[in-house]
Amino acid sequence: MKISTYDTTLRDGAQSDTVFYSKNDKLNIIRLLDSLGIDFIEIDNPVYNPYDDGFFDDLKKMDLLHSKIVAFGSTVKAGADPENDPVLSFLADYSECCAIFGKASPLHVTDVLKTTMEENLRMISESIRFLKSKGRYVFFDAEHFFDGWLSSRQYALSVLETAQLAGADEIVLCDTNGGTFPADIERAVMDVKTHVSVRLGIHTHNDCALAVANALSAVSAGAELVQGTINGIGERCGNADLSALIANLQIKSCFDVLPEGKIRSLTGISRAIAQITNISTQGLPYISRAAFSHKAGTHADAVLKNPATFEHIDPSLVGNKRTILLSEISGKSAVLPMIRRVVPDIDKNSDKVDMLLSAMKDKEAHGYRYEAAQASFELLIRKVLGMYTPHFEVELYKLINEAKLGEECKSYVFTEVRVENQQEIAATESDGPVHALDEAFRKALRPFFPSLDKVQLIDYKVRVMDNRSATGSTVQVLIDSTDGKDVWTTVGVSIDIIQASHEALIDSIEYKLLKDEKTLQ
Amino acid sequence: MKISTYDTTLRDGAQSDTVFYSKNDKLNIIRLLDSLGIDFIEIDNPVYNPYDDGFFDDLKKMDLLHSKIVAFGSTVKAGADPENDPVLSFLADYSECCAIFGKASPLHVTDVLKTTMEENLRMISESIRFLKSKGRYVFFDAEHFFDGWLSSRQYALSVLETAQLAGADEIVLCDTNGGTFPADIERAVMDVKTHVSVRLGIHTHNDCALAVANALSAVSAGAELVQGTINGIGERCGNADLSALIANLQIKSCFDVLPEGKIRSLTGISRAIAQITNISTQGLPYISRAAFSHKAGTHADAVLKNPATFEHIDPSLVGNKRTILLSEISGKSAVLPMIRRVVPDIDKNSDKVDMLLSAMKDKEAHGYRYEAAQASFELLIRKVLGMYTPHFEVELYKLINEAKLGEECKSYVFTEVRVENQQEIAATESDGPVHALDEAFRKALRPFFPSLDKVQLIDYKVRVMDNRSATGSTVQVLIDSTDGKDVWTTVGVSIDIIQASHEALIDSIEYKLLKDEKTLQ
Repeated sequence: MKISTYDTTLRDGAQSDTVFYSKNDKLNIIRLLDSLGIDFIEIDNPVYNPYDDGFFDDLKKMDLLHSKIVAFGSTVKAGADPENDPVLSFLADYSECCAIFGKASPLHVTDVLKTTMEENLRMISESIRFLKSKGRYVFFDAEHFFDGWLSSRQYALSVLETAQLAGADEIVLCDTNGGTFPADIERAVMDVKTHVSVRLGIHTHNDCALAVANALSAVSAGAELVQGTINGIGERCGNADLSALIANLQIKSCFDVLPEGKIRSLTGISRAIAQITNISTQGLPYISRAAFSHKAGTHADAVLKNPATFEHIDPSLVGNKRTILLSEISGKSAVLPMIRRVVPDIDKNSDKVDMLLSAMKDKEAHGYRYEAAQASFELLIRKVLGMYTPHFEVELYKLINEAKLGEECKSYVFTEVRVENQQEIAATESDGPVHALDEAFRKALRPFFPSLDKVQLIDYKVRVMDNRSATGSTVQVLIDSTDGKDVWTTVGVSIDIIQASHEALIDSIEYKLLKDEKTLQ
Repeated sequence: MKISTYDTTLRDGAQSDTVFYSKNDKLNIIRLLDSLGIDFIEIDNPVYNPYDDGFFDDLKKMDLLHSKIVAFGSTVKAGADPENDPVLSFLADYSECCAIFGKASPLHVTDVLKTTMEENLRMISESIRFLKSKGRYVFFDAEHFFDGWLSSRQYALSVLETAQLAGADEIVLCDTNGGTFPADIERAVMDVKTHVSVRLGIHTHNDCALAVANALSAVSAGAELVQGTINGIGERCGNADLSALIANLQIKSCFDVLPEGKIRSLTGISRAIAQITNISTQGLPYISRAAFSHKAGTHADAVLKNPATFEHIDPSLVGNKRTILLSEISGKSAVLPMIRRVVPDIDKNSDKVDMLLSAMKDKEAHGYRYEAAQASFELLIRKVLGMYTPHFEVELYKLINEAKLGEECKSYVFTEVRVENQQEIAATESDGPVHALDEAFRKALRPFFPSLDKVQLIDYKVRVMDNRSATGSTVQVLIDSTDGKDVWTTVGVSIDIIQASHEALIDSIEYKLLKDEKTLQ
């Protein structure tokens, strides 16, 4: 059985208190959702967000392979005529599909709209009829439906009957405040099924940590369309996480959800959208790095014997992969595969393995974390085993950061590097200290290692490891670098953010030079 | 009806890939859990984590008001005798209550333990009998119970029957891999109820975004104890979020969960634990700042008219509060209460309000976010309305950050400030640039404003706003300061992390001086 997917990352997702989209962000997210095979993509309308950045025009020109764009608005206001409503006019003009919300709970009719029950029904009916008369495919979002159903079942149902009679193509039942429990969702949807015959959708929020469970309950009671946002962003505690919902429905419940073959791109696309929305995917079901990572010694051991013992699905089904975390409580078997990438034939019981484990624990005690920074970990292995001669040394760097009242702040870096017996000096100027540092090292090293020209830093993350001592805290810097072919991550830790950045930059350069050497061999 | 709470933040929570506890962290978390009135607090055992930092001894000396400590371990190994098992010996000695896990799924018996079904039952039975003979209260964790029940119901049930017969006081049914759905949990628990009479608990994971829903299903089928971690930290996608579970059960389902009056401290305690575990509470149900925050203009308007329209519970029930977010899509009514704190009688339709909204939007376009930094927002209001004369000006600062090979990195700051017509110069040296900057400003300003001596920075956060240009990205710095009485947050934004920190530091000092002035009036 087919369950349709309806994404509202751009509309309800934008209500999240940490999300702000540029025009390109929005267009990129739409491209990604289309390539995942999402059926409907909801966007806002220009009346609610009157910044004219050309988004609506640019979107019109975009060719989508699979997804249909749904412009979002609401019913007319009390006493008003749909013909004169700027939002409905936009919807009627802009896209083949549109969604309007109307109130399905008496509390909202009286306390928010401040109108009568009858007038609310008229507003819903006439707004839908207007859009249908223009040939649109209409979703009616029954806002606060479940609260309405629990407090005034008859009225809530009459709202749906009105919408169906007016010609709505699909009715989406909304748990707008996120306060309903799965058992009530199921009872309500089953009740609705006996009153209307139109296709039903479900829109849930995570205020009780139940958004995904509530959507599943609605589907098991007969809903055929699920609304959510990628990675569950959204107002307050977020919307239902569409990524988890899709995997739950398709992989675990065998519904027909995404087009053939698409679900393997779920991890990649969810992570790409997380980068655009600038949220962490930390711990998210199915698509996070943690979702199939194993830290404890015994779990990591077992999963290497038989993955089914500690994994509820094969991670590759959603395009994710297993990670064995390196940490103080991992056993040897977790660290061994990493060590073997450097020393393929090392014996599990050799002293070298113990030396490495103890070096790693020592580093971890100082705040280093190698879970993400595998390039730095490979360098550490080589250093501990005496398999590493640095390609260069930074004998000195001096950063001057200067700000005068009313002038732009400037950063100057002076550095002295040595490669074998040759010394090189470089100086740079930039608008930020880390940028100036990076430029200075590369400038000094370029005469010796021209391949560094291809290296670019693509991500820079700062984490304050111990907030409790504020500006005197230990800081961890993670840097992602690429040479256009590979991507690698390095780590630096210090009480001084500049020093931590320096360390991660040096590791990144060393890793690249090591990689070049291995290719030459 | 009473539902017991069982916290595993210190044990299963430590399996999270981002969590690392010091001894004091652990003792502080236990104090917090006890003050919340959690019934059972699970800790690990020293055999699995052989770092002797004195934790187990210190804990022994601690007086707890309500909570019982539960030491965690496992059954004996195949072929072994409980009398010689170091973990069981520790459990028998250490605490009144203990928990041991055993396998309830044949796959784990054959593929992980590599033993027979009968031997597994012996291991469980003898381990429990051993602990009971020492007078302990014993929890038996039936690991992988639901996977076992779905694949080999008879065996899974026989494991429970064995545990009951051996004298287990409570049996905890575990969805260890987090792959089970609520309907199956409910069916399984109902089935279990017809086979054993011992008290049942539930332990769930969030791999399908269903941990909390699964725990609720188990309770509705008859489980009387819920396991989880505060804020849902834990291995892979985390454990059931105990904070959300407690609120769901007590406030929304009217079970008797925490001791009288304790639930109002849920928000404060969950946030304090999040600080210790160094995780973000962003978007967490019930206890996050976002949980009752309203951004959209119409929602914020409605919630100010009648909170029930967009809030599923009264936030004060869990010790949280409503926040109206300041943002490009908030209406005037959201910003107005903030403005009125500075200008109490301002008219909603005055030009000044429009000026402020447009100044705020301009700042937001440059990367400033005022949701958290309300002190900086108050300064902005005063600046825009001409109600602000700076108490001082930083005419210049110069930071020198220097690292020589083999030596510690040093930061030196030189600054020149002016207060009215007097100039003051100060220089400092420190091991980190932001710390040196903070010291320098305070040193230069102290002769004029002695009250600055009382100001301490208590939190420093860095967020890279746009990762895509790596080291050239815009950086936002948030600083929390206190004078022992109030806490305030300020923000700085720049492509230069030093400059962003400078800005937030200056705002913090200005806010303190303004506050002192108001107190004097």
